[in-house]
Amino acid sequence: MDKALALASAAQANVSPNPAVGCVITNSKGEVIGQGQTQPVGGPHAEIMAIRDAAARGHSLVGATAYVTLEPCSHHGRTGPCCDALIAAGIRRVVASIADPNPLVAGEGFARLRAAGMEVHVGPGGAESRELNIGFFSRMIRKTPWLRMKVAASIDGKTALDNGVSQWITSEAARTDGHAWRARASAVLTGVGTVLEDNPLLDVRLVESGRQPHLVIVDSQLQTPPEARLFLPGRSVWIYAGARSNPEREAALKARGATLTHLPNPNGKVDLAAMLADLARREINELHVEAGHKLNGSLMRDGLVDELLVYLAPKFIGSGMGMASHVHAEGPLTELAGALPLEFRSVEMLGPDLRIVARASGRDKF
Amino acid sequence: MDKALALASAAQANVSPNPAVGCVITNSKGEVIGQGQTQPVGGPHAEIMAIRDAAARGHSLVGATAYVTLEPCSHHGRTGPCCDALIAAGIRRVVASIADPNPLVAGEGFARLRAAGMEVHVGPGGAESRELNIGFFSRMIRKTPWLRMKVAASIDGKTALDNGVSQWITSEAARTDGHAWRARASAVLTGVGTVLEDNPLLDVRLVESGRQPHLVIVDSQLQTPPEARLFLPGRSVWIYAGARSNPEREAALKARGATLTHLPNPNGKVDLAAMLADLARREINELHVEAGHKLNGSLMRDGLVDELLVYLAPKFIGSGMGMASHVHAEGPLTELAGALPLEFRSVEMLGPDLRIVARASGRDKF
Repeated sequence: MDKALALASAAQANVSPNPAVGCVITNSKGEVIGQGQTQPVGGPHAEIMAIRDAAARGHSLVGATAYVTLEPCSHHGRTGPCCDALIAAGIRRVVASIADPNPLVAGEGFARLRAAGMEVHVGPGGAESRELNIGFFSRMIRKTPWLRMKVAASIDGKTALDNGVSQWITSEAARTDGHAWRARASAVLTGVGTVLEDNPLLDVRLVESGRQPHLVIVDSQLQTPPEARLFLPGRSVWIYAGARSNPEREAALKARGATLTHLPNPNGKVDLAAMLADLARREINELHVEAGHKLNGSLMRDGLVDELLVYLAPKFIGSGMGMASHVHAEGPLTELAGALPLEFRSVEMLGPDLRIVARASGRDKF
Repeated sequence: MDKALALASAAQANVSPNPAVGCVITNSKGEVIGQGQTQPVGGPHAEIMAIRDAAARGHSLVGATAYVTLEPCSHHGRTGPCCDALIAAGIRRVVASIADPNPLVAGEGFARLRAAGMEVHVGPGGAESRELNIGFFSRMIRKTPWLRMKVAASIDGKTALDNGVSQWITSEAARTDGHAWRARASAVLTGVGTVLEDNPLLDVRLVESGRQPHLVIVDSQLQTPPEARLFLPGRSVWIYAGARSNPEREAALKARGATLTHLPNPNGKVDLAAMLADLARREINELHVEAGHKLNGSLMRDGLVDELLVYLAPKFIGSGMGMASHVHAEGPLTELAGALPLEFRSVEMLGPDLRIVARASGRDKF
């Protein structure tokens, strides 16, 4: 199963909106005779790849065992059901890490395999497989993406100078790692403030990637310039606006290929929770946020942040912008108990910088 | 030499203002026949302890080799010169990590040993020994203590809420570790703001320690209350004041055992650089700073900070006090190049928290 998990992990950056799955098939002697991983959307699932691999290598699958990191699908989605393929191939036994949270599968896959007389064992590698696909599980179960907020700061928590300068606080090693996290996300989200201030690309450049995540812009008043650099060929740009409409600007942005959605909250700004629900409907699993302190603060204030991806640079800035502003609806905290509790999940050096992955306590319990 | 370094390291918290030194003596077969470490001030040095240990175990030292982490002293300080003891014992060879930076020794020890016909080899473990005694080296060479600033903050760099509440941002594991760092310092420094706000003890309680570091208070206007809890039996309290005098308050503080020193800068506040020079004259090696954002900022602004000891708690506070304020004399930075460059020397988990030791780049090059 470790090998199957490694295959799933390697596929992660290319499979959105599908879950990343790995499959290893062994013969009765325990020898690996085929392996595969989820292909980019529309392509075959891991089980089909492994079956084809075994066939290409001239192995019979009769009596074989398939180790797969997620319950084989039982429905006709973009591809045919994997269960039928496993049954037809003569596989005798399936060991699966975890049930598919997709309500279209949700145990149906295991039931179909068992009905065909197959031995099914569920559990090994379950936590790892869920973690690899935390965004897919979030979307399927919570109906909202897994929101990971990326922050690059000095050791004293400053993300920009008072004059807005922020390029670059962290090293190229940290920025490259940041692109790897962008690559595994279904979409990158930013605010119009960042668009206006930095005119960023927000694409995946510093690491190899077979796809570009979608780009989401929170833009209450439709200020995104149609000439912004972020309108890249082949990338979807989704702009969420508030109450105010601006037909001329909307036409210009649509002409650039943007998809506009008005989702106002009572203040006329973007209803962020509703936006996340909408993004889940658009099959966004992991949402990678790279925004300024204002939008970061709004997302925190609305209780929408699942995880922080913090890069700390070895420098002391002393004054400037923090990671997030106006984090608490009631104003500044008066008790430490009101702070958002986190858990440090990993800490790693990246060149001269430090990367901390911190998860909002309990947010992954769904 | 590793064993000698370990002995030195274990002695570190008890030897101020002396350097922490370890000594291991081996016979001609390379067997350890004696070992020792620096004793608390006024007690024997490591070499004497090792010689005594060998004697107590019935070993002859004739022809033996002494591994010692610092050049043996050649002068009569609080104890007799170790060189003479090594020569008298019949030791044939001395391997020393590094020359003593004390101008009263500074090569004299090695010269005296060589003059007595002893073989002397210098170098193994030199960097480690210097690092163990960075404060002693700083005082001897730079004539100023090694200033280590301790900060406990949330992941977003907040050290207190807007209302001043800061107890406790970090866990007991982190606070205990903080006491271990206090214990190895010659003195703990704070500002009168912290005294007035928290009425802290600032002693070593959470770890075993044979001594209490001195306490230094930066108190420009002599506001330290004579009834403050920090006046502990047997602990020296040194208060540095600015221009303004207050005979009544001074008398009350002296009655509590405090030592007062007026060291005003042109603004009437405490001249911090002059204070550090004065502390070096008072044999302060490592100075452990636990102060609020204002004094932290003043120390940074004056370019006096050598190292940061940062504890980061897994919580997001969002608003409140930063680690240091008014860090730059010219006002907020306008270019990232103006940030204080650091190097992360170590990163470690302490219970749920993270400890980062960051050194101001190049500050240890003296």
